[in-house]
Amino acid sequence: MIVVMQAGSSEAMIDAVLERLGEYQLQGHLVRGAERTVIGVVGAAIPPTLKEELEHFVGVKETLRITQPYKLVSRELRPTDTLVQVRDVTVGGNRCVVIAGPCSVESEAQLMATAHAVREAGATMLRGGAFKPRSSPYTFRGLGEEGLKLLAQARDATGLPIVTEVMTMNDVALVTRYADVLQIGARNMQNYQLLEEVGRTGMPVLLKRGLAATIEEWLLSAEYVVAQGNPNVILCERGIRTFETATRNTLDLNAVALAKRRTHLPIIVDPSHGTGKWYLVPPLALASIATGADGIIIEVHPDPDRAKSDGGQSLNHANFAALMPKLVAVASAVGRVL
Amino acid sequence: MIVVMQAGSSEAMIDAVLERLGEYQLQGHLVRGAERTVIGVVGAAIPPTLKEELEHFVGVKETLRITQPYKLVSRELRPTDTLVQVRDVTVGGNRCVVIAGPCSVESEAQLMATAHAVREAGATMLRGGAFKPRSSPYTFRGLGEEGLKLLAQARDATGLPIVTEVMTMNDVALVTRYADVLQIGARNMQNYQLLEEVGRTGMPVLLKRGLAATIEEWLLSAEYVVAQGNPNVILCERGIRTFETATRNTLDLNAVALAKRRTHLPIIVDPSHGTGKWYLVPPLALASIATGADGIIIEVHPDPDRAKSDGGQSLNHANFAALMPKLVAVASAVGRVL
Amino acid sequence: MIVVMQAGSSEAMIDAVLERLGEYQLQGHLVRGAERTVIGVVGAAIPPTLKEELEHFVGVKETLRITQPYKLVSRELRPTDTLVQVRDVTVGGNRCVVIAGPCSVESEAQLMATAHAVREAGATMLRGGAFKPRSSPYTFRGLGEEGLKLLAQARDATGLPIVTEVMTMNDVALVTRYADVLQIGARNMQNYQLLEEVGRTGMPVLLKRGLAATIEEWLLSAEYVVAQGNPNVILCERGIRTFETATRNTLDLNAVALAKRRTHLPIIVDPSHGTGKWYLVPPLALASIATGADGIIIEVHPDPDRAKSDGGQSLNHANFAALMPKLVAVASAVGRVL
Amino acid sequence: MIVVMQAGSSEAMIDAVLERLGEYQLQGHLVRGAERTVIGVVGAAIPPTLKEELEHFVGVKETLRITQPYKLVSRELRPTDTLVQVRDVTVGGNRCVVIAGPCSVESEAQLMATAHAVREAGATMLRGGAFKPRSSPYTFRGLGEEGLKLLAQARDATGLPIVTEVMTMNDVALVTRYADVLQIGARNMQNYQLLEEVGRTGMPVLLKRGLAATIEEWLLSAEYVVAQGNPNVILCERGIRTFETATRNTLDLNAVALAKRRTHLPIIVDPSHGTGKWYLVPPLALASIATGADGIIIEVHPDPDRAKSDGGQSLNHANFAALMPKLVAVASAVGRVL
Repeated sequence: MIVVMQAGSSEAMIDAVLERLGEYQLQGHLVRGAERTVIGVVGAAIPPTLKEELEHFVGVKETLRITQPYKLVSRELRPTDTLVQVRDVTVGGNRCVVIAGPCSVESEAQLMATAHAVREAGATMLRGGAFKPRSSPYTFRGLGEEGLKLLAQARDATGLPIVTEVMTMNDVALVTRYADVLQIGARNMQNYQLLEEVGRTGMPVLLKRGLAATIEEWLLSAEYVVAQGNPNVILCERGIRTFETATRNTLDLNAVALAKRRTHLPIIVDPSHGTGKWYLVPPLALASIATGADGIIIEVHPDPDRAKSDGGQSLNHANFAALMPKLVAVASAVGRVL
Repeated sequence: MIVVMQAGSSEAMIDAVLERLGEYQLQGHLVRGAERTVIGVVGAAIPPTLKEELEHFVGVKETLRITQPYKLVSRELRPTDTLVQVRDVTVGGNRCVVIAGPCSVESEAQLMATAHAVREAGATMLRGGAFKPRSSPYTFRGLGEEGLKLLAQARDATGLPIVTEVMTMNDVALVTRYADVLQIGARNMQNYQLLEEVGRTGMPVLLKRGLAATIEEWLLSAEYVVAQGNPNVILCERGIRTFETATRNTLDLNAVALAKRRTHLPIIVDPSHGTGKWYLVPPLALASIATGADGIIIEVHPDPDRAKSDGGQSLNHANFAALMPKLVAVASAVGRVL
Repeated sequence: MIVVMQAGSSEAMIDAVLERLGEYQLQGHLVRGAERTVIGVVGAAIPPTLKEELEHFVGVKETLRITQPYKLVSRELRPTDTLVQVRDVTVGGNRCVVIAGPCSVESEAQLMATAHAVREAGATMLRGGAFKPRSSPYTFRGLGEEGLKLLAQARDATGLPIVTEVMTMNDVALVTRYADVLQIGARNMQNYQLLEEVGRTGMPVLLKRGLAATIEEWLLSAEYVVAQGNPNVILCERGIRTFETATRNTLDLNAVALAKRRTHLPIIVDPSHGTGKWYLVPPLALASIATGADGIIIEVHPDPDRAKSDGGQSLNHANFAALMPKLVAVASAVGRVL
Repeated sequence: MIVVMQAGSSEAMIDAVLERLGEYQLQGHLVRGAERTVIGVVGAAIPPTLKEELEHFVGVKETLRITQPYKLVSRELRPTDTLVQVRDVTVGGNRCVVIAGPCSVESEAQLMATAHAVREAGATMLRGGAFKPRSSPYTFRGLGEEGLKLLAQARDATGLPIVTEVMTMNDVALVTRYADVLQIGARNMQNYQLLEEVGRTGMPVLLKRGLAATIEEWLLSAEYVVAQGNPNVILCERGIRTFETATRNTLDLNAVALAKRRTHLPIIVDPSHGTGKWYLVPPLALASIATGADGIIIEVHPDPDRAKSDGGQSLNHANFAALMPKLVAVASAVGRVL
């Protein structure tokens, strides 16, 4: 950590900082410049609260952290890519994954139709929501356990592993009985008890980035899961909230490329939520693979204009099938397979 | 709802929309302009998914909602202000409330010192965290039930009602035994099960706005609580996340003034989180009262540079005491009392 | 335009709106719903100020525009792609363009080295700044006309057309003497007199999106140029400002895909400014082409760690040369050539 | 400046940084921590490009600036408040200024009516636009010199000094002949040639913050003016662009309080643009004064629902007159006069 003193701060002010560092068995190295003095903090264990503590000191202008606050998920700690195994599918290797399926599980007919269609087209996992977070209390919130059962049935029929969201600690045991990957939604990215609970299951976790979460906060949330002894975290960029309202969110592919350098965890992209418009999903899906994402997750529905949620951003079966060979081509162009 | 057709859309495309409306027992009124046709949708109950459904139709350019999706919290439904009673304190009337106390309850000595100090200075309620959401798994997360007991003890000693955060459904019963107001933190604003659980308690709920939540989403989250039969919701603006990083958040006082027109619920402001810097808290606290907020919630600590959380944004006792008469003066200037 | 009345607005309030519409020879079609009345406005020419005017009327809740405010650049007006001819290079057709070169022209040696290197690697145009907008008055602001002369010399030596920024109306005549494409920087996207001045030249204009400009505002700025009779506008997405600070900007590829549908003008992407980090430029350049951009513009410097501006985001010659075959492969994967 | 090396960077990498520092006659002080080495840079003059240069070095993780890049406007340089004299009005002292008037000068009748009304109500300066920046080329762009003449006439009649916008370098001489304060609009905050041109006039300059400008960039733009020998800069916060669209902009009063600490220049607030809705102007005007702003600038129109621009955010005469005594009361509550 670096402590920047104000121009004209006195020796007594500097001493007060050094004294506090001493209380924590830390050393302060003074760097005296033309205008101001800077204190480099060195020592075994810098308490997480020290930055805020010192900002209160008279004469301190600001404090700067120079280490990332996450450890286990950091590529500095572990330079090689983590591979997450989901049944017979490996996430994070040379092969990009394609996870497809409806936003919500609505009925057996709907789910089975889409499950077969996406498998036919080449998808490697099936997504579908049984528990749906909705901003309004007056909209469809999913079929619950009935939806989970249908997902399991679709897995049996197609062989595709199942990705589905778990919204509360209390549902983790239930969802774990049916799902292959536990999805943590964007709104729950900082629901720490839930993160720890899914961490304790040891199961693969798909962790969506929050709407207003920095890359650092996203990785810290992953750290919550991994700190429970569960390394099987798949990160998912799904768009952030910005001033631009012509699209539902702003898909942040910069974040994918940067996070690949900062962490060893695999990263996939959700262009359905990332754009909010079905006709923007194909170009951004291709862009995601070109950026180096380890896969994509896409909403597909047999009849999007009758979907109970997110119809506007779902591809129909034909459009999904038409996208797949283009994804294969782009993956190949960047040295990956699909 | 309004359906805007693309320029040059055909009669068959328009008919397809009208037909779908008919399936829902809705009528479509055509408004044919020079460039394009617009369909006004009229009927008893427009399904929440209709907007997305129709965006998928060929020839539809966009759909526009013209009613707010919240009902019970709307001032259109209930024009008069809701008053929330917390023991002998009324929130939402002519008197502005001042809720003060430490970010985290750290010890009996710390809490009792601050409780007495803020009561002495004129605060009307005591805040303090026993369960703390922290972005890093490696920082202090609160004393848990021990903290709740200390809060109850502080209430007994000072008479100040207690505001404290509840982070999960599973803790609601526990926190309810000690607290007078259940605080829902910004990260949990869209944790819908938690909202419903605190709704079911019937207790006063302080609902913080999420970092990236629109005013509409904030009111929808309040709707989740009120829809459980609990009208005792106090909204709290605490800053939103923007591109400006010189302050921790951007306090959005526009939102306070606008929300006061849209909802009948009381609204308070948290300038501590809203600015992230203790020296900005006084000017923004004064601004909040001038804007018409029904009160403020402020972090106060006996020794902020040794606080276990949020020290950088906490006032010490002397600075809090110095702020109070200024708040009284501004409240009086806008026709309120403190 | 749609005028949404408040719930419970009176007939007199509605009549006042209709009367004002009549003053402009417009008709109002009433759509009376269960909760509120909506007025569809129909007529030959809706004044641009009408929306704001009516928002002031008693009983009006809000007004919604249903037509885009731009005309000439709209794909509704002209469905086929505009091709912009720059000497022997066509922008907007099946072939993607690669514009490369240093942020600033610093010296003959630097510019010529890079010009030859990027041409060798396959770039189709040369970029370089002679007039540089800098947020601090104390940094290098370019060589001015001397830089323009060097650019012309580089064009003579390599055959590459020149793209360079013009910052003020007063410099347009000067820059026009040397440049093949006039670049309007992000900070000048809403410098309307400058837009009109470059419009009057009839020359190709590269219009960068402003840091906080919506897609609609960006297209309106293009409209300013085209309205002067100059259809030769190339749009350039270069990142927007968001809360994420780990990257310099957030490259908005959603905007590229959406704008391609809204306008017939060609669109290129600047991943150098869009990311601000040289090691993120290759993945985002590939993503841009995969999204459907008509080309990219990249900063290249012979020795980035000695660049007088933007060194941190510039590729060196070797890294640029290594990127080109990957761009060719991705372009091919999406049915384009480079 | 601080150079943070990556964990595991070699001595050779560190030496390369030190060598480059030596080329600039700078010293590097090493601070070797448990995980990584940090280099504090000390010396007489750190080149502005050094930060970017070093980010390109192998083994460098990041570079951190520890001094603000502005000098002349900094409160570290000049601790006492700057007072800007505009005829007989002082901006920046104990008395808050109220600048009021129409968005655009539309006619003699309109301007004179409002000028008299705002003077009567207690305003201290008159605002009005003769040159209007408009996002669409198809809207009213002001009366030009005719508008300036009307402003001068209104000044003669009321004694109120005139604030009006200048949009291009070429108009500076013209506007200077009529205006008392030259306003630089938000879109031009980084139009550096214009900043320097108004700097050279020596006249008072009102510098609006850009929609997406950080506080630091805003102060750097003020530095451009002051660096021309013109200390008469009045800063104006007018709202920033965020994800919230229920208000036109998000008024950032945090920025006012923070900038008052960082600079000695006076700061006023524009709640008309800051909110975009006339009914939000009074509460935010009061909040601005409570925060410590040195004044406000408000749009007032005799008949807002017939205004040629910004009618939706203009107060009528009665509402402005009703606001003034409230402003007086809040100013008094915070120890100021109006």
